[in-house]
Amino acid sequence: MTHTPSRQAIVPFVSVDNMMRLVLHIGIERMMADLAAEIEADFRRWPLFDKTPRVASHSDVGVIELMPTSDGETYGFKYVNGHPANMKKGLQTVTAFGLLADVATGYPLMLSEMTILTALRTAATSAMAAKWLAPKGATTMAMIGNGAQAEFQALAFKAICGITEVRLYDIDPAATRKCATNLAGRGLTVVSCTSPEEAILGAQIITTCTADKQLATILSDNMVGAGVHINAVGGDCPGKTELHHDILLRAQIFVEYPPQTRIEGEIQQLPENHPVTELWQVITGSDQGRRDAREITLFDSVGFAIEDFSALRYVHSKLRATGLFAELDMIADPDDPRDLFGMILRAGATRAA
Amino acid sequence: MTHTPSRQAIVPFVSVDNMMRLVLHIGIERMMADLAAEIEADFRRWPLFDKTPRVASHSDVGVIELMPTSDGETYGFKYVNGHPANMKKGLQTVTAFGLLADVATGYPLMLSEMTILTALRTAATSAMAAKWLAPKGATTMAMIGNGAQAEFQALAFKAICGITEVRLYDIDPAATRKCATNLAGRGLTVVSCTSPEEAILGAQIITTCTADKQLATILSDNMVGAGVHINAVGGDCPGKTELHHDILLRAQIFVEYPPQTRIEGEIQQLPENHPVTELWQVITGSDQGRRDAREITLFDSVGFAIEDFSALRYVHSKLRATGLFAELDMIADPDDPRDLFGMILRAGATRAA
Repeated sequence: MTHTPSRQAIVPFVSVDNMMRLVLHIGIERMMADLAAEIEADFRRWPLFDKTPRVASHSDVGVIELMPTSDGETYGFKYVNGHPANMKKGLQTVTAFGLLADVATGYPLMLSEMTILTALRTAATSAMAAKWLAPKGATTMAMIGNGAQAEFQALAFKAICGITEVRLYDIDPAATRKCATNLAGRGLTVVSCTSPEEAILGAQIITTCTADKQLATILSDNMVGAGVHINAVGGDCPGKTELHHDILLRAQIFVEYPPQTRIEGEIQQLPENHPVTELWQVITGSDQGRRDAREITLFDSVGFAIEDFSALRYVHSKLRATGLFAELDMIADPDDPRDLFGMILRAGATRAA
Repeated sequence: MTHTPSRQAIVPFVSVDNMMRLVLHIGIERMMADLAAEIEADFRRWPLFDKTPRVASHSDVGVIELMPTSDGETYGFKYVNGHPANMKKGLQTVTAFGLLADVATGYPLMLSEMTILTALRTAATSAMAAKWLAPKGATTMAMIGNGAQAEFQALAFKAICGITEVRLYDIDPAATRKCATNLAGRGLTVVSCTSPEEAILGAQIITTCTADKQLATILSDNMVGAGVHINAVGGDCPGKTELHHDILLRAQIFVEYPPQTRIEGEIQQLPENHPVTELWQVITGSDQGRRDAREITLFDSVGFAIEDFSALRYVHSKLRATGLFAELDMIADPDDPRDLFGMILRAGATRAA
């Protein structure tokens, strides 16, 4: 069979291996700073996007979600799962891949791994939000939960917010050791702590990033003092929260997309009409960010499709220069578009010949 | 860089070329009969599936859709576009790919082209529905619209319903010629017609399968007599219909998933409470199919996620025996699932070494 697909039929594919090469080629901090800039630029044109809460398929053990969006020219979606028990099986809690397509034709433009890319864009989004919301001159971040996302968060806050010290705590000391080892020699003061209380000592920013699918209280009310910015990353699906209810009542709450965050975020603990501010409105100046040095700001992050869109577009923009992709014969492309059947027949004839 | 992905990280990928090989290996009629059996089996367990109307992103020129479903053990979704103007650019109106995943872990099981597979499953579903709804002893089908789907429909009705004659009509005679040529020598009497009226002469089954994105009237009321089964394939998105409103009022209407069909199907022309019968209930015997020989039955087909799920599972079941797939390094899979960052670092170290 000598079916030779045309250019239109070929979809560039960024494998895990090529994504790692891309990250190493660009540099991890530089790439997260670039992603934060792309995400911020897309948040500035927020009203232009097709927005819909992710489409979730829940089971007893986890969730599989599709997260689509479009800016009218380019369409993107991400497939992502969340399975907390995976870790015990030696699997990732979160894996993902995504696709960009041309709105004008519906043809895919790129397929990409997104497990690594999601880790990068999540940290970039957190740090971009903190740039707008954290108290001025913040230098120290507490990092509660030292799993797969932790190093990305630490380095994104270094690159984007100028954090110089990160204070690690995890319920499992092995996770803290892993995180501290990975962060060694990267220009951050890394302090390993044995309690959440120790971790938050002197921290202007508190990042919570734990993975249990349950209503947990990683931060209790009396742990959080005035002027702190809380970056709540781990509470991101129904029944999964990290913060005590009373912290939420004391904080000014910032979210990505309220219809999704009210289902998935920390604010699922609050009444549906509890006031929240949309981050994009802070960025465009149409709403207020932090009001004073004593306010508690909370970025109730659940991850939104536009962030994945920005990240995919960024990776797509690097394909030509880096060559870090393979080509997938993914789209059937007969010479005559109405002759899909004849394409199969001719493939068979060529094969038989 | 010598990152060697583990088995879990590798996703079997069925390219267009491998899908064509699979179709030729199994035989196109046999494969559609197999698919019809799989789809019918899944329709029998319909209540068990996660069902949601497809998630559509519309633009002026077309639509991009995601169609997810799950039976609790396996999750599947399809990406599919519909761009009627693509044909003039030499592109497919409809292209698609799909994925199966393991509900227990969220890890993908297979990625597959679905442009060809959608053509096969659409025809298989049409013929399966006609097996339940068409008048007994039907031998002749009118095929109005001779585009990419036409040959698949004709052969599915031959294989599954015992049709012996197909009468072709298309507004473009070149499409009819293409279709007649492709169907020559495959055991069907093929009659090329120059009007829809000629095409439906003596036909017990009328299949409409045109691609314009508009409210068209491919069949007018006075063309359709008693006892006919109409298989309406082309009307499948908002603003796109093929049948005159009055035909709908005379017909017993069968649908896949009412919440989706009321938006996308021929019945978008009718009030929301117009009675329809769900095909799965005919198959399980909980509702009635054709009542008598004079009734007009209409399968208002728009394509539902469960049909894609059945088709993907069928292809997945053939992977091991045929070897017709490639392996994609799509899922990041560090030795320690919490050490995604370290995986990148080690890849860099290996590369530098």
